[in-house]
Amino acid sequence: MSLLPVEEALERVLALVAPLPAETVPLREGAGRVMTMPVTAGLTQPPFSGSAMDGYWLDAADHLPSAKLQVVGESAAGRSYQGEITRGQAIRIFTGAPVPREGGVVVLQENTTREGDWITLADSLSGNDNIRPKGQDFAKGAPFHPARPLNARDLGLLAAMNVAQLEVHRKPVVAIIATGDELVMPGETPGPDQIISSNSFIVAAQVEAMGGIARMLPIARDDRESLRMVFDLAKGADLIVTSGGASVGDHDLVGEVAAELGLERSFWKIAMRPGKPLMAGRMGEAVLLGLPGNPVSATVCAELFLKPMLAKMQGRDPQITPRRAVLGCDLGPTGPRTHYMRACLSATDGLPMIMPFDNQDSGILSILAQADALLICERDSGPHKQGTEMCYLPLM
Amino acid sequence: MSLLPVEEALERVLALVAPLPAETVPLREGAGRVMTMPVTAGLTQPPFSGSAMDGYWLDAADHLPSAKLQVVGESAAGRSYQGEITRGQAIRIFTGAPVPREGGVVVLQENTTREGDWITLADSLSGNDNIRPKGQDFAKGAPFHPARPLNARDLGLLAAMNVAQLEVHRKPVVAIIATGDELVMPGETPGPDQIISSNSFIVAAQVEAMGGIARMLPIARDDRESLRMVFDLAKGADLIVTSGGASVGDHDLVGEVAAELGLERSFWKIAMRPGKPLMAGRMGEAVLLGLPGNPVSATVCAELFLKPMLAKMQGRDPQITPRRAVLGCDLGPTGPRTHYMRACLSATDGLPMIMPFDNQDSGILSILAQADALLICERDSGPHKQGTEMCYLPLM
Repeated sequence: MSLLPVEEALERVLALVAPLPAETVPLREGAGRVMTMPVTAGLTQPPFSGSAMDGYWLDAADHLPSAKLQVVGESAAGRSYQGEITRGQAIRIFTGAPVPREGGVVVLQENTTREGDWITLADSLSGNDNIRPKGQDFAKGAPFHPARPLNARDLGLLAAMNVAQLEVHRKPVVAIIATGDELVMPGETPGPDQIISSNSFIVAAQVEAMGGIARMLPIARDDRESLRMVFDLAKGADLIVTSGGASVGDHDLVGEVAAELGLERSFWKIAMRPGKPLMAGRMGEAVLLGLPGNPVSATVCAELFLKPMLAKMQGRDPQITPRRAVLGCDLGPTGPRTHYMRACLSATDGLPMIMPFDNQDSGILSILAQADALLICERDSGPHKQGTEMCYLPLM
Repeated sequence: MSLLPVEEALERVLALVAPLPAETVPLREGAGRVMTMPVTAGLTQPPFSGSAMDGYWLDAADHLPSAKLQVVGESAAGRSYQGEITRGQAIRIFTGAPVPREGGVVVLQENTTREGDWITLADSLSGNDNIRPKGQDFAKGAPFHPARPLNARDLGLLAAMNVAQLEVHRKPVVAIIATGDELVMPGETPGPDQIISSNSFIVAAQVEAMGGIARMLPIARDDRESLRMVFDLAKGADLIVTSGGASVGDHDLVGEVAAELGLERSFWKIAMRPGKPLMAGRMGEAVLLGLPGNPVSATVCAELFLKPMLAKMQGRDPQITPRRAVLGCDLGPTGPRTHYMRACLSATDGLPMIMPFDNQDSGILSILAQADALLICERDSGPHKQGTEMCYLPLM
């Protein structure tokens, strides 16, 4: 089996998933979600021409240095001035309050002197009318449908548009299955040949950081019955992520059992380090992604493949754009597999500096935890000299 | 009142808050949290020297080109080989399985030929022993206490250390109060002088993006009774964030009522655009932060002051390090207040390019929503020429 380039593997896993159907959520829960259809503004904003400052409103024709005007009322937010107003008169006006009519200006409080019901304008006046015109922000009926996850400020805009609920892509439910006779859960006492299951915790946090709903299932033993039982618990999930059991060894039953349960299996060896083996396919209503059992390989494969799948399922752009940094050391030639080196970033005046860890053993979690980036050494590239600009992926 | 520099205002609001006390959480909920005390590894990892590959284990002395060895058993993950093994013998071994003793090597499956119970090694052998030594990752009793929020991979490391629960700083509970007679909630029908409340939605999403728990309280009217009632609902919160009513206008009652309820009030005009007025102080067990009523000003003040406060309360580093970008246009001199200009970033080969929006009116939500950065024009700086390196803050 020849090695599959990372880009091709990504295309294939992305082809397995589609944006999930819409659900209705209250505006309050809209952050990070992608809208499936446009909304329209229910009103015009500002709904009226209003004051941008605390001060006095007067007719533009009276806006002259040292002019003296009679204060005949006030307009406050929520309580507009209802009376008449003629030339030579002014009203006290507060930020956000409606102006009595068009054709006026607001003079800032600090540019006036008040005595009783009379104000005198300052000697020198600005050309600014300090009025926010009606409809400056948006008009009633204006559509809004950004092609990206909604941010905090979008929610503010939608609120101002009087949109109380949204149609957004449903969150993917991800069932996470660790497999292996050697695994026990944290808090248990491992037998002499056993280790604590760690992959599920990493993948669950990655899924949640990406906006998915993680369901951590019990550890599946390396036998058909245990695997079938755990796959049964995964029913209803949009995506089933396994780790371990996806290699070619004699004890790798996950693929076989999943195939018996309907998996249209693809199994690839990918031209990457770490994390060569990957399994993926449709399995009934769900999609299965089989990560390697090694935690470092599983983490890197999740960054490269699971993250874009979850993005696509939520209606986001699945493309991950690598960032750029300056290499902090010399590196030898890379060989036939693209190497995702665990690395640390440090700030400089320009691009950040990236320094890979000396020990790139894919069994070492303590180094993986310290890393904040994956330095990308493209296959068959290098040697790379210190100071070269390289690409990297920030780690979740 | 002279204008307070942003840095001083930040120091003062940070002085009001402290890291919150610890709570115990299951490992599964540890992502993004900061540990209050170290944990120690409950075991040694790897707990045994194990194979890093699928292949055959043999004595190092037998590791010779074309050597022929008898296969006498196998070691699988969770089921180690219990028998004797002598020179001239080998066992089938799988990834993650214990080696029978020290002093051996694992030869990759693909570098052997098997006939019955016998294997022949390849003509040329690598110098690699393909064994992960015991304790390579961490030893039993090793402490772990990173001074930063836990990432997905930290959780994997903690799981591997057999840590099932953690002591972490409690999440801040933030009560959010919008005030103003002109405000109604989305979904309601605004009166002729009214607008829809938007600040609370922005602040709630900002609080949640920062790891806090947001409690959105009912809108408070511009009267003492309504304000007292809503402040009463805020009881139990660690932080109370108001928006609106924090200016010096005649209708700004929030500060007065909060003072009656025990607020040791500080009120500042800050040397910044937008968002000049800010109120802050201790109020019983809680801290109050009074944001301006204007949504753009409120958003910028939340980025500059609320975000670092929430970081400190969760035991994180409160310092926000501005990022660097290249200015995409010419800008005039800045004046006496640091200007946080709504801007868009675009990728280039080096540092990103930053382009501020033409319209910087702080009343326009549609521009705020599109922005992805605040370009920082330091007070009394400029003019700035196109191509200059500038600092910016990414927007949540």
